[in-house]
Amino acid sequence: MSALNRRAIRERFGDAVRRRRRELGLSQEGLAERAHLHRTYLSDVERGNRNPSLESLTRIARALDLEPSALLRLAEGGPAEQGAG
Amino acid sequence: MSALNRRAIRERFGDAVRRRRRELGLSQEGLAERAHLHRTYLSDVERGNRNPSLESLTRIARALDLEPSALLRLAEGGPAEQGAG
Repeated sequence: MSALNRRAIRERFGDAVRRRRRELGLSQEGLAERAHLHRTYLSDVERGNRNPSLESLTRIARALDLEPSALLRLAEGGPAEQGAG
Repeated sequence: MSALNRRAIRERFGDAVRRRRRELGLSQEGLAERAHLHRTYLSDVERGNRNPSLESLTRIARALDLEPSALLRLAEGGPAEQGAG
């Protein structure tokens, strides 16, 4: 996997987080609080500057009322489909 | 998210990787080679002893002919549905 490809993956994930956050009407501060993550970390994730772990992305997905797979589907360009319940 | 919950996430992911790998008739060595990862790292992932990054899980998913979201769906207990093409 090239460096360009890796960057693209992180950026698509960050875009999906931002879109879903705005859909829910949440600020970065609001989402960070819900996810128990630092606001600057979340800001970095949204800009594609972080490579979040499975645990962190699960935490972010749940704070966005999505299953982790649904958040990744958004990042891949598909519909999220289902909430985390 | 509790320590127990975090462990459960990693274990469900590891189980999904193992199931899909066997479905494809791949050994750990074979999958590690396809994913350009070390066999011991992959073995740790399958046992839930690692918290793989977005980039690593994408690499593993592609080596399993799945989109990252489909691999996570397997981990969540749903059908994988679609291949990575």
